[in-house]
Amino acid sequence: MKKEKLILVTNDDGVEAKGLKSLIETVREFGKVIVVAPEESQSGMSHAITTKLPIRVQTVKKEEGLEIYSCSGTPVDCVKLALNQLLEKKPDMLVSGINHGSNASVSIVYSGTMAAAIEGGINKITSIGFSLLDYSGDADFETAGIYVRRIIKKVFMNGIEEGICLNVNIPVGKENELKGIKVCRQTDGYWQEEFEKRIDPGKREYYWLTGYFNNSEPLADDTDEWALQNKFVSVVPIRIDFTSYSRMKELKKWKF
Amino acid sequence: MKKEKLILVTNDDGVEAKGLKSLIETVREFGKVIVVAPEESQSGMSHAITTKLPIRVQTVKKEEGLEIYSCSGTPVDCVKLALNQLLEKKPDMLVSGINHGSNASVSIVYSGTMAAAIEGGINKITSIGFSLLDYSGDADFETAGIYVRRIIKKVFMNGIEEGICLNVNIPVGKENELKGIKVCRQTDGYWQEEFEKRIDPGKREYYWLTGYFNNSEPLADDTDEWALQNKFVSVVPIRIDFTSYSRMKELKKWKF
Repeated sequence: MKKEKLILVTNDDGVEAKGLKSLIETVREFGKVIVVAPEESQSGMSHAITTKLPIRVQTVKKEEGLEIYSCSGTPVDCVKLALNQLLEKKPDMLVSGINHGSNASVSIVYSGTMAAAIEGGINKITSIGFSLLDYSGDADFETAGIYVRRIIKKVFMNGIEEGICLNVNIPVGKENELKGIKVCRQTDGYWQEEFEKRIDPGKREYYWLTGYFNNSEPLADDTDEWALQNKFVSVVPIRIDFTSYSRMKELKKWKF
Repeated sequence: MKKEKLILVTNDDGVEAKGLKSLIETVREFGKVIVVAPEESQSGMSHAITTKLPIRVQTVKKEEGLEIYSCSGTPVDCVKLALNQLLEKKPDMLVSGINHGSNASVSIVYSGTMAAAIEGGINKITSIGFSLLDYSGDADFETAGIYVRRIIKKVFMNGIEEGICLNVNIPVGKENELKGIKVCRQTDGYWQEEFEKRIDPGKREYYWLTGYFNNSEPLADDTDEWALQNKFVSVVPIRIDFTSYSRMKELKKWKF
């Protein structure tokens, strides 16, 4: 008999998010599921940790094969708390998402969803972040669920070596509209900010941060943005080690 | 006559931090300096951005060659606001720090100081994060200042290619105690959490997140932790593109 897997689930849209519920449904067939997700949306929190405020945890649900906890902290706090306090053993896999909205290209650095997956990778856990290209709260996760299942199966079958995690983005569409899965690199891009200046009732200036994504390169067919625009699910392997080895060689010639 | 450089300065310890003041002093000799720093400490905020709260900016100082602004947001908000609203042109360099405490090894992912440098890199600006291995508010930045000057000079002389930024960590010590500068890779490591469970006056449980750094590998002499323990200043080139190209090749064989 196969040993049952233990799977840790988190996200950054909060414990009530539809994308989280979809992910839980999908991963339950693989084993025992422990969910530790933020109480409220923590989108854009990146790899932030909470050190100046106390962290609170609440039990949301406990049933056969599924426990759900909410946490007052960030997605990375959720992962740390799960590993350190709530799980009896290291999980076989960490999945994060399904995020409401893209985390392709450079969005990975702002994303709490992907920070949780990276935190898993730092702790040598097989980790995957999933995102659907639909920001709306009532997005349709049906097709996404099919791809999430397929990818998790493959990952359990083949294993991922230490030092990386996966960034999976899924286009919007019915099953027959998507063209399959493509292994990609991160597109070179940036967010073009548009700070909106306003005046409050007390006559003080303030800004709202808004913006839109821009490519810094023409979209080659090995990039995640190309894949997504062409209705492929993109899978980008992300390195936990941020060192640029090629540039290290160069810098050594500088004779500091 | 050489064109005067424009240098953007930020940090995550806040506009009043001693490390920021030391950095400002050092960079003023290179050109015009614009500082946009968080109002208060934003340590551990990583690459977080503020989208659900308004962002406020205050002018702290305006004199010949130096402008200082404080911002209610995160370090990355400071960079975005500077580039989008406060600077007339793209700066020639972004420097972040000097952080009170190490940002070596995996600490880079939690660090607001390094997130600001990475944000600069995303925007194709030559960017460097500086950290001193002393967490105390009244740390002595004298020796650090000497190395900051040396490294900035070298970077202006040689240039850094697009797609990377530098993570510089400086050990504590007098000038004659430090052994020079070493180009390194990021040590494989993690933070071992120790959540401290407490009970509040209302009888509710809460946790404090604390922890300590651990290596996941023996310290080879090409790692930043080795360099720092041996009194070298460590310089790690950090890639903005997080793709693992070697693993991409592997994953393509999976036939998803």
